[in-house]
Amino acid sequence: MKITLHRRYAFAASHRLHSAHLTDEENRRVYGKCNNPYGHGHNYVVEIAVSGVVNPEIGMIANLSDLDSYVQREVLDVFDHTYLNEDVAQFQSLVPTTENLCREIYRRLEQFPGAHLDRVRIEETSLNSFEYSQEPPGGYSA
Amino acid sequence: MKITLHRRYAFAASHRLHSAHLTDEENRRVYGKCNNPYGHGHNYVVEIAVSGVVNPEIGMIANLSDLDSYVQREVLDVFDHTYLNEDVAQFQSLVPTTENLCREIYRRLEQFPGAHLDRVRIEETSLNSFEYSQEPPGGYSA
Amino acid sequence: MKITLHRRYAFAASHRLHSAHLTDEENRRVYGKCNNPYGHGHNYVVEIAVSGVVNPEIGMIANLSDLDSYVQREVLDVFDHTYLNEDVAQFQSLVPTTENLCREIYRRLEQFPGAHLDRVRIEETSLNSFEYSQEPPGGYSA
Amino acid sequence: MKITLHRRYAFAASHRLHSAHLTDEENRRVYGKCNNPYGHGHNYVVEIAVSGVVNPEIGMIANLSDLDSYVQREVLDVFDHTYLNEDVAQFQSLVPTTENLCREIYRRLEQFPGAHLDRVRIEETSLNSFEYSQEPPGGYSA
Amino acid sequence: MKITLHRRYAFAASHRLHSAHLTDEENRRVYGKCNNPYGHGHNYVVEIAVSGVVNPEIGMIANLSDLDSYVQREVLDVFDHTYLNEDVAQFQSLVPTTENLCREIYRRLEQFPGAHLDRVRIEETSLNSFEYSQEPPGGYSA
Amino acid sequence: MKITLHRRYAFAASHRLHSAHLTDEENRRVYGKCNNPYGHGHNYVVEIAVSGVVNPEIGMIANLSDLDSYVQREVLDVFDHTYLNEDVAQFQSLVPTTENLCREIYRRLEQFPGAHLDRVRIEETSLNSFEYSQEPPGGYSA
Repeated sequence: MKITLHRRYAFAASHRLHSAHLTDEENRRVYGKCNNPYGHGHNYVVEIAVSGVVNPEIGMIANLSDLDSYVQREVLDVFDHTYLNEDVAQFQSLVPTTENLCREIYRRLEQFPGAHLDRVRIEETSLNSFEYSQEPPGGYSA
Repeated sequence: MKITLHRRYAFAASHRLHSAHLTDEENRRVYGKCNNPYGHGHNYVVEIAVSGVVNPEIGMIANLSDLDSYVQREVLDVFDHTYLNEDVAQFQSLVPTTENLCREIYRRLEQFPGAHLDRVRIEETSLNSFEYSQEPPGGYSA
Repeated sequence: MKITLHRRYAFAASHRLHSAHLTDEENRRVYGKCNNPYGHGHNYVVEIAVSGVVNPEIGMIANLSDLDSYVQREVLDVFDHTYLNEDVAQFQSLVPTTENLCREIYRRLEQFPGAHLDRVRIEETSLNSFEYSQEPPGGYSA
Repeated sequence: MKITLHRRYAFAASHRLHSAHLTDEENRRVYGKCNNPYGHGHNYVVEIAVSGVVNPEIGMIANLSDLDSYVQREVLDVFDHTYLNEDVAQFQSLVPTTENLCREIYRRLEQFPGAHLDRVRIEETSLNSFEYSQEPPGGYSA
Repeated sequence: MKITLHRRYAFAASHRLHSAHLTDEENRRVYGKCNNPYGHGHNYVVEIAVSGVVNPEIGMIANLSDLDSYVQREVLDVFDHTYLNEDVAQFQSLVPTTENLCREIYRRLEQFPGAHLDRVRIEETSLNSFEYSQEPPGGYSA
Repeated sequence: MKITLHRRYAFAASHRLHSAHLTDEENRRVYGKCNNPYGHGHNYVVEIAVSGVVNPEIGMIANLSDLDSYVQREVLDVFDHTYLNEDVAQFQSLVPTTENLCREIYRRLEQFPGAHLDRVRIEETSLNSFEYSQEPPGGYSA
């Protein structure tokens, strides 16, 4: 009996979208106001999905407090109340779009020992979210 | 690296559920108060999911402002502040259930050039939503 | 010990904003797309606030099931799944703006025998709400 | 044309997590404050997903009022305003974790005659949800 | 310059509504299924409003972390993951309705040294909330 | 007949809490991680309340599109996608706490010609909001 758990976390951070591969004018055209020089910020919501088989003796797939500690240490302590471009090493050379943020958070959580990490979804605003799930070895096509 | 973007839009419209294939009495029995003669309305929320490979130079799968313009022109300008049965051509001969609305909005958006349209989900009320994703050529079965 | 209870109800209805006091052109200018000929609709949320002194033996100000029956009969049975302009008598001569809807729902509920009706607030969309509270005899100014 | 319908229901219940397979000390360690002797409670939200082919004459996959009656009788009448450990027979010998609750609600609904039950998701709090979907005969792997 | 801060906290608890002033039959009639013998539960949301004058040097009315510690110690540590009727002393002789819960939480927080406690509002479900604000010495009437 | 309209707007911005009246160590103690050198950000929601008498011929207190244009020009164009400390003149000498942000937005909107501005409430996160309403000439006390 396989169950998927979805759990939500939040952090507040700022970022500026600006790519070293583009000229200043291209940056303004591609990113619009997200390219403003001093950046801007969001309340990011991270929803992770982990799945596993239910342990019949305890009726759970993983201990939530273990998962919470793992996410706190690997993600929230690193991203919360930061300016992503300066405070998080990976984003010094990578544009901190939500797409790249999904991938980076997935990378930080995929070794969680208690259950399989299926998916990382990040809400940048209440109207937008991005989702990453690792492509299986043989690819997505059936 | 494939990412799925979910984006939400809203429009306000009214409709009446009444099928030309049914007698008046059958219409009342099948649709209940949704068959009331003068119709009623909803704040519809449309959540679309599009997916694509992240462009490594800009860190995005598609430009949100391109997607927004496309949805504005193909869907919101057509459906917002209308009585679906009268104001939208397709629903003059098709019952404007949310199921049919999903399919029609999918049809209007599937040519979006910037990313693959995975899914259209419509919330009719905060308790109800309907979702359409096109069946792949070989069908859904594994 | 005085307590205020807030309780939420929902109904789905359609309306058209068009005033008999204005010319067609004025109607289009004042109401914009809300003046479209066939109307449009909303999921209206009605939040009512009633207050009273707590009965010390039962620890409540009013019986929620009494309030629910009252609102069901006086408001929901009348407004839900209707086209307000045609199906609700008061709106045949009164423009069904949310302002007027607040006042009309207040009028229908103010005789509730179980507690004092403080306020009626209606959410027309998730971004808009309107609120009516009856001005006391001496007016609002202290 | 296949459509998936998601519909949300709510019930209020209490539970205590305590496994007969564990010692008292292990119970306290595994379940933490969820093992408190007198239990505690939640507003559970149950979101079910059912899918089917749209009937072209009526434009729907199933009649919502049929689904609502089915869920009312099979789930809400049984679980709402109860202490799961005592009032629901299955949880006298099974720990009422949300994982087990998902499975039990799936079992109670899978015979719904109107459409295929794809998934049961239960929100225990606004930050947590668990989801069960029956593994197909050949398993999940492609 | 006076500002009001609203801050939300959550706890999960169970309760049974049963008054020692009523017969068993009266209890069933007054409280309905809330009188079920083993109780039931909720995710309670507590929203407190505190107000004060902004300290011009630091631009704040109170330190949120001081407020959070105060509420944690006085309310959440006492109410979270409990059966209110048994685990919280005040509710052994007082029916744990949300009205009484508001008053009790107000009493526990009104000595907060950092700002004036204006109001305690408790959401029992997403459709219901109750609110208590202390009547000023001269009463509410102007 | 007086009605209050509540309308919600959103902007994304970043800020750093740091007061020129305090030493670096005091800043770290008072503001905690909100004092981090590069700042952080939020999705701010601004809910404004305006009230007025309903014009009986049109059934409205003010034209929403007039209000929207006013807020767009006076607030959103100035604050959205900015780093408040650098991009908004007032916050170069004033700590951009949400308390000060409320006051500043109130100041920018109080001359709105269409209705009386009662209140500005800003949600900094889903758990926090701050509210400013101008003290009447004779003060708040009755």
